[in-house]
Amino acid sequence: MQRLNPSPALDEYWMAKAIQLAAKGRYTTSPNPRVGCVIIKDEICIGQGYHIQAGTPHAEVHALVTAGENARDATAYVTLEPCSHTGRTPPCADALIKAGVARVVVGMTDPNPQVSGSGIERIKAAGIAVTQGICSEQARALNPGFIKRMQQSLPWVRVKLGVSLDGKIALANGASKWITGPAARRDVQRLRAQSCAIITGSGTVIADNPSMLVRPEQAELDNYPLSTVRQPLRVVIDSQERLTPNWLMFNDGHPVLLVNQHFRAGFSQDVEQCQLPLSAAGKIDLHLLLAELAERGINEVLVESGAGLAGAFMANGLVDELIVYQAPKLLGDKGVSMLTLPDYAQVSETPDLKLTDIRHIAEDIRLTYQLAVDKSS
Amino acid sequence: MQRLNPSPALDEYWMAKAIQLAAKGRYTTSPNPRVGCVIIKDEICIGQGYHIQAGTPHAEVHALVTAGENARDATAYVTLEPCSHTGRTPPCADALIKAGVARVVVGMTDPNPQVSGSGIERIKAAGIAVTQGICSEQARALNPGFIKRMQQSLPWVRVKLGVSLDGKIALANGASKWITGPAARRDVQRLRAQSCAIITGSGTVIADNPSMLVRPEQAELDNYPLSTVRQPLRVVIDSQERLTPNWLMFNDGHPVLLVNQHFRAGFSQDVEQCQLPLSAAGKIDLHLLLAELAERGINEVLVESGAGLAGAFMANGLVDELIVYQAPKLLGDKGVSMLTLPDYAQVSETPDLKLTDIRHIAEDIRLTYQLAVDKSS
Repeated sequence: MQRLNPSPALDEYWMAKAIQLAAKGRYTTSPNPRVGCVIIKDEICIGQGYHIQAGTPHAEVHALVTAGENARDATAYVTLEPCSHTGRTPPCADALIKAGVARVVVGMTDPNPQVSGSGIERIKAAGIAVTQGICSEQARALNPGFIKRMQQSLPWVRVKLGVSLDGKIALANGASKWITGPAARRDVQRLRAQSCAIITGSGTVIADNPSMLVRPEQAELDNYPLSTVRQPLRVVIDSQERLTPNWLMFNDGHPVLLVNQHFRAGFSQDVEQCQLPLSAAGKIDLHLLLAELAERGINEVLVESGAGLAGAFMANGLVDELIVYQAPKLLGDKGVSMLTLPDYAQVSETPDLKLTDIRHIAEDIRLTYQLAVDKSS
Repeated sequence: MQRLNPSPALDEYWMAKAIQLAAKGRYTTSPNPRVGCVIIKDEICIGQGYHIQAGTPHAEVHALVTAGENARDATAYVTLEPCSHTGRTPPCADALIKAGVARVVVGMTDPNPQVSGSGIERIKAAGIAVTQGICSEQARALNPGFIKRMQQSLPWVRVKLGVSLDGKIALANGASKWITGPAARRDVQRLRAQSCAIITGSGTVIADNPSMLVRPEQAELDNYPLSTVRQPLRVVIDSQERLTPNWLMFNDGHPVLLVNQHFRAGFSQDVEQCQLPLSAAGKIDLHLLLAELAERGINEVLVESGAGLAGAFMANGLVDELIVYQAPKLLGDKGVSMLTLPDYAQVSETPDLKLTDIRHIAEDIRLTYQLAVDKSS
């Protein structure tokens, strides 16, 4: 029986297909993970699906529906271990067993330490062959935020900065339009669209009066699976309570979480307030804020702020990924440096980064770094 | 006759070979240009050569010597128009005519406006077919300095900087070891080796007491055609006459050009002094300095200095190419910015760059920019 002598190359081929499907949920699945599934029989794909949105069917269910009776004796490729618990939908492990598949190939196990492995056990107990760890790195890359939230009760934090070649985000007088080009700004829209929350500070609100919303016509999101674009939660840190209710983002009908020390009256009902203590530096404690966001099911956070807040996230070791759009410009030494950091005495004390991706975005380049020290260990 | 119906693709193929040969002279030909030549008969390469050093035979002569009698009725590919004047060696145009080649293919014409085209005319007048402009962009790229010196009486100026991702060259306390890694430092050695002169300032000499020499064991120069490495002329700008004769680079037996306002006694005989007037800013006039270097046959200059001198070259529009080794580090806002530039009022006033090359150098990246405004027009 060919399916019991599977080829690793074929397994990777079909898992890659499932990963591509999962990625279609990039903008919409949270707080759930992005998951894709294909069902293969005699080397033909007879069913496929991906998870679109919490409360709607999981990837396996979509794939089993397309496969129908053919699923019997087939192989199911799932990017994430099938669930074994009844949530808003019944357990996918049971659905696969009921459909009579002969083998299940899993990209990665459930990152939730409480349930990890139980879906696989359930499937094995039903006499179905299970292969694990196929394309696991790529499967993990689909869900950095979900994984981190399950394992550390913190969201995945990306800091995005648009800078000149010499690392400046503005001239001395604050002028910053336009350092990066339109293609880079479109790319930022997509980053926003995949984020569950955008964090900014009162300084940015006062300087720019921004909306921080995804502008669908600018983002040009391909194959968007819903009729309206899901907007990220705007999280505004106002340690000094400088913000009044009249700024644009407090009055556009989309939710905002205003983070301060004391509840402030006069804000619209779309503005939820959250009181957090100050850290020793006299600013809202960012670690507590991230824990609060994880509690709310926020998987991926994008920090879009000035040098002070972005630097505070960095200096506190709270950043997972730094995304820099670097324009072919020189603003000079009088410009505003991209990150406010401590006054280090030695180069060896400064943060070490690991370049994970680099690409041209029209005339700009986008550099993606992960923090070199693995914070999850 | 096949050679009179040449294929453009074949012409490009053989010209590319001649260009590769020319590039072998990268470190040694100045003040002469890098030139390569192949001689092809019946689609076989019967002769090849490149210019190694001023005063030694030109590329065409090397190629004709290898081809011998076979050169008759062959096609010669030369990256640069053959010379028609008698210098330290006889005219190459005559050598090609005498050898009886049937066709000459030329990458680019002589950039010297006084003689441009005369070699080609001479060859045509002898009844030999000439094809021009094959791979001319690549042929020009071999000799940016020679071309600029011939056309503008100025050398090609590269500014090299080793910086962190946030555009800093040192911490606030001056610490700068080691921002970039060993592979980037080796690459800098090669940049030095291909430069006719290195320009630095008194601040760098006082801070680092550098040699600014090419260290052959670190540079690992491939296929170096001479037995000893040609060292660039070290040009030290000392506007304030702060330097004393005891710094290392004044006493290592290699030439230095010390640029100041007044002749200063006490320096070794390897230190030539050059007096130049100050500009309005109270510093040595950099345009006059570059003209002086061109006068001395300097084709390519590398500026290795602090943010002040590098910024002055940039702000004065004297830079052709900016080469940035960018390390995956963040030094923070207290660090020293890479270029001292004017306090611009608008982003549109700042220098525009054009990214021409980007590559990984181990953990660092090397970004090469040309100044977006074409200074030669």
